[in-house]
Amino acid sequence: MSMRNDPLVVFTPSGKRGHFEVGTPILTAARQLGVDLDSVCGGRGICSKCQITPSYGEFSKHGVTVREGALSEWNKVEQRYKDKRGLIDGRRLGCQATVQGDVVIDVPPESQVHKQVVRKRAEARDIILDPSTKLYYVEVAEPDMHDPSGDLERLRDALRDQWELENVAADLHILQSMQPILRKGDWKVTVAVHLGDAENPPRIMNIWPGYYDGTVYGLAVDLGSTTIAAHLCDLQTGEVLASSGVMNPQIRFGEDLMSRVSYSMMNAGGADEMTEAVREGMRALFTQIAAEAQIDKALIVDAVFVCNPVMHHLFLGIDPFELGQAPFALTTNNALRLRADDLDLNIHPSARVYLLPCIAGHVGADAAAVALSEAPDKSDDLVLVVDVGTNAEILLGNKEKVLACSSPTGPAFEGAQISSGQRAAPGAIERVEINPITKDPRFKVIGSDLWSDDPDFSKEVGPSGITGICGSGIIEMVAEMRMNGIVDAPGLIGSPEQTGTERCFLDGRTYSYLVFDGKAEGGPRITVTNRDIREIQMAKAALYSGARLLMDKFGVDKVDRVVLAGAFGAHISSKHAMVLGMIPDAPLDKVTSAGNAAGTGARIALLNTAARAEIEATVGAIHKIETAIEPRFQEHFVNASAIPNSVEPFPILNSIVSLPDATFNTGGGAEDGSGGGRRRRRRA
Amino acid sequence: MSMRNDPLVVFTPSGKRGHFEVGTPILTAARQLGVDLDSVCGGRGICSKCQITPSYGEFSKHGVTVREGALSEWNKVEQRYKDKRGLIDGRRLGCQATVQGDVVIDVPPESQVHKQVVRKRAEARDIILDPSTKLYYVEVAEPDMHDPSGDLERLRDALRDQWELENVAADLHILQSMQPILRKGDWKVTVAVHLGDAENPPRIMNIWPGYYDGTVYGLAVDLGSTTIAAHLCDLQTGEVLASSGVMNPQIRFGEDLMSRVSYSMMNAGGADEMTEAVREGMRALFTQIAAEAQIDKALIVDAVFVCNPVMHHLFLGIDPFELGQAPFALTTNNALRLRADDLDLNIHPSARVYLLPCIAGHVGADAAAVALSEAPDKSDDLVLVVDVGTNAEILLGNKEKVLACSSPTGPAFEGAQISSGQRAAPGAIERVEINPITKDPRFKVIGSDLWSDDPDFSKEVGPSGITGICGSGIIEMVAEMRMNGIVDAPGLIGSPEQTGTERCFLDGRTYSYLVFDGKAEGGPRITVTNRDIREIQMAKAALYSGARLLMDKFGVDKVDRVVLAGAFGAHISSKHAMVLGMIPDAPLDKVTSAGNAAGTGARIALLNTAARAEIEATVGAIHKIETAIEPRFQEHFVNASAIPNSVEPFPILNSIVSLPDATFNTGGGAEDGSGGGRRRRRRA
Repeated sequence: MSMRNDPLVVFTPSGKRGHFEVGTPILTAARQLGVDLDSVCGGRGICSKCQITPSYGEFSKHGVTVREGALSEWNKVEQRYKDKRGLIDGRRLGCQATVQGDVVIDVPPESQVHKQVVRKRAEARDIILDPSTKLYYVEVAEPDMHDPSGDLERLRDALRDQWELENVAADLHILQSMQPILRKGDWKVTVAVHLGDAENPPRIMNIWPGYYDGTVYGLAVDLGSTTIAAHLCDLQTGEVLASSGVMNPQIRFGEDLMSRVSYSMMNAGGADEMTEAVREGMRALFTQIAAEAQIDKALIVDAVFVCNPVMHHLFLGIDPFELGQAPFALTTNNALRLRADDLDLNIHPSARVYLLPCIAGHVGADAAAVALSEAPDKSDDLVLVVDVGTNAEILLGNKEKVLACSSPTGPAFEGAQISSGQRAAPGAIERVEINPITKDPRFKVIGSDLWSDDPDFSKEVGPSGITGICGSGIIEMVAEMRMNGIVDAPGLIGSPEQTGTERCFLDGRTYSYLVFDGKAEGGPRITVTNRDIREIQMAKAALYSGARLLMDKFGVDKVDRVVLAGAFGAHISSKHAMVLGMIPDAPLDKVTSAGNAAGTGARIALLNTAARAEIEATVGAIHKIETAIEPRFQEHFVNASAIPNSVEPFPILNSIVSLPDATFNTGGGAEDGSGGGRRRRRRA
Repeated sequence: MSMRNDPLVVFTPSGKRGHFEVGTPILTAARQLGVDLDSVCGGRGICSKCQITPSYGEFSKHGVTVREGALSEWNKVEQRYKDKRGLIDGRRLGCQATVQGDVVIDVPPESQVHKQVVRKRAEARDIILDPSTKLYYVEVAEPDMHDPSGDLERLRDALRDQWELENVAADLHILQSMQPILRKGDWKVTVAVHLGDAENPPRIMNIWPGYYDGTVYGLAVDLGSTTIAAHLCDLQTGEVLASSGVMNPQIRFGEDLMSRVSYSMMNAGGADEMTEAVREGMRALFTQIAAEAQIDKALIVDAVFVCNPVMHHLFLGIDPFELGQAPFALTTNNALRLRADDLDLNIHPSARVYLLPCIAGHVGADAAAVALSEAPDKSDDLVLVVDVGTNAEILLGNKEKVLACSSPTGPAFEGAQISSGQRAAPGAIERVEINPITKDPRFKVIGSDLWSDDPDFSKEVGPSGITGICGSGIIEMVAEMRMNGIVDAPGLIGSPEQTGTERCFLDGRTYSYLVFDGKAEGGPRITVTNRDIREIQMAKAALYSGARLLMDKFGVDKVDRVVLAGAFGAHISSKHAMVLGMIPDAPLDKVTSAGNAAGTGARIALLNTAARAEIEATVGAIHKIETAIEPRFQEHFVNASAIPNSVEPFPILNSIVSLPDATFNTGGGAEDGSGGGRRRRRRA
């Protein structure tokens, strides 16, 4: 920057501006103004990361007229780059083109380090790329016998002098491979530098001879009890290159978390077995995702993990014993910064591993990731975020404060412990409507868009193509049964007389409802038993009472909006969920799905390192509520066992649907309707 | 500290003093005054590390009269400790005894954290204990469901609140083992905390339930090309518990360093083989030394390594290729801070490993350790420190500046490449005297104190007990031959006629000298050939010319004193070394041996962590001289090939011994005397 009569350079979109001497490279001007213009080669015309577009003409907004010749002619370096590699018309290399007159320079997104990463959901917060690891091209001084020093020290000097990177460390494997690479590159090398974090100095992760025209990668991993899912991202562009998942091999030790905790209690070395199993699954996943993206696993230098507390401990090799009993003490709730080889992962051996903080003993790093993705702490209105799984993790808050708890819904929402239940897979009933007159159901199964009463349904799906009811199907089913007077508010299925349909039949001491009978054609007989209703009642009561407890603590009776997170949440019909009384009363259009918000949170933490400190602070500020010791929880649970609720009014719901008032309990042999008494507390 | 009319407490030996309220525990007073009084249990009367001795009577020096009752009566805690564990008469527990009146308190050395560690050599610098790792007893808050936090976080809070240790990290293995230990100790635990260093935060290394009445250990390792030697030290007392050594298993790849570098050049994977070999040797040594001291290897939490640059690289798994050729570029010259498991060591997996910095491409961390031990940079007079090995590492300096170089002496000083040479082992001739009249030698062999002309010698040793000549023996031998006119200044052995002894005999084209003929009695025939003389000439010329070059660079013609370091240096006769012209002219009593100074330097760096930063700064300030590119080196070498020297005067030597002036070169067939022409440069 210089005298006022030097040419004016205006950068867009930042609007930053300054006067620069004739001959100043655009990259230099950008750096002096703090304009976000990328460069890997440090201005040597090699990397082309600093491409810019000069604009010509009159710019009244900026008070500038840009004439032809505002930038220098193409020099040899720039021309050679264009001839060899090509440049988009109008683009120049910012490090070669110099200021000759007033000029407006546009920095296209690709040339910004902190570019915005596109997210699919329009309402979602932006991800601004702020990667842990960047590439730097440096020219290193050769060794000098008169002033002996190590190759590493001269490389560090180069990083300091050419890139202002101070105190860069190097792991042993870099020392082991560095000397031949420096010589092969004739003392010009590209290094990938992890820029450090709260606990670690900047660190050389990789080194290549000469200019390295590639990139480095990161993984965002959502380690669930059932599946392990990962996104592989390019750390220079933020792009997701591949997404993949595997079953969590720990399933063989128990379907739900509590049974895995039990396995470790019952079997010496059981926790270690499960640790090895999940790491094995992780390695398989990483091999698969790297193959899919056709990249070298050793170029994966950063990985972010989110998971619930039990998975967190088992992944780290910590016995989850304490998480299976009050007071549910975590070994550590802080975020963890480790190395890949600490966890036997098959990526870059000293890849940095970041585990998000846990919120509490059963509100894990996955809930923290949901908080990062859905940002209740930045919300103007009061938002309830529910991550629906075998253990529901619930956040309630706004800019003022955020509360969190978990609630043991159990696996019913995943189709488990339901007589005709199954996982969400082709053949599973996922949508249901019951005809209010005939009380006959029609349904859709996963894998087909047709309703079961469509003439083409039996051709396309057929009886053998119907296998059971998945989680979202059972919710719709029970809600439809309630809406159509087949099940009453306390949760009893009525007799044929009471309900007006022969689909209700005595099944032991209670009635069941026949959904589909494919026996004659070799298909299954699918029913909803009163026991199934009880399971759903307990699951939804747990979920609702957790949410309601947070509302108590917040001092409110209603929420402005509800976000359903988790893969399952994406398939729930908000109307049916509300009929069931799973979630608090709210306008239907204010009940939205966030998809795999935990996975998204992991991706945010991967791509935007500043977000790590942010979520650590957020988690520190969250008020943790332990449902197990809150007397009101039990009361809410009993109330919420009714469908939708024996106490809460649900006025918005009532304005949309009117629920029959019938009560099928005749005081006889059938069970009474309060599911609360038999409730088995299940932490999973 | 309080009002002036409160009792006065004076601590000795520090002399620190202050007024304290009646009832103040002595430990509290000591802490407030910054008196070095140890405590592990934090004042709970458990550890007894804070023992002090009150003195009674009049202390005019301190202006205090101490009366009976100046300290409180024995309380229950103190009495119980004494009854159970015993206390030396007069001792009190500083944490229990409280101030009641003016008192003089002596802190015995055992109660000081920074106690002085005894060294064997009187002239050596003190080692003040300043260990990397200390023990702390803490009481940890129990988990609380109302305010959930991780066990680690509460342990960290306890360390902060009870010990002012901030930001203590924990490795994964601590997380993995912590929960049951906390519960077993009923939330009282002892932790070993590595206090951190320039690159690392403080870190929990071990954790024990309750009060841990043990200690933790450190290793000081001198990794030589031939042997690996280690001292095992108690980090709480500084005491050496065991010292042990093993052969470096790399010897099978080559006796000297250069042949190992060649091995790695000639064999793919050769460097890796040697890395594995040396680490295997290290593990064997650690197993051995731990067994000797009867301690658990997992309690070794700190290890310091010194070695030459080639060993440094091979130990780290770096191919030493570049060290085998100019410009002898090290991968890194800085000190390294690693973890034991980075190097596959079988001690505590995250034991901290510290490698001293290297000075230059062939002046290694071992020379840095010698500099730490012998401290030329703190010397008032000008000291030459020579670490004699197959590669001599030479330091010259005083408070003003220090210069360093290495010189390739080759293995002759270790008895290699000498016709009757051998390693220093029982049976090797180590001392020699030649009778000036008869020209017959008498000698001593390792393993006996008798001279060979002692009547009991043949009984005690016998012909079969004489096996060869070791390094110090060959130095005395050649010097004695020179003093007695058997070899001339240029290095030729004379004929019987020239020397007056039939022990000289024609042996090919030159003469040899018969030392001992045991053939008749089944023993060896030991001779010194003219080729042996040449080998010694080259070795000593290399050593001298390195030292002389440093003197040139320093601008001096003489040094005030000479320190011979290395195990070999301990056995060299200073007179004979000077006759040979190995070392510069100096008063004989100013030529001393420092023993294994490199090993001592390692021990200092282990026990006094502040010394690490100190030696890093010292090494940074040392002026490195590369002999290979100094023209004067070659000139000095040629001059130093003569015995003692063809140019330098050696006035002090000449005042002690007069060397014959004979010249045996008759211009005939025997070689001329300048060894310089045939010199093979050898880096080892």
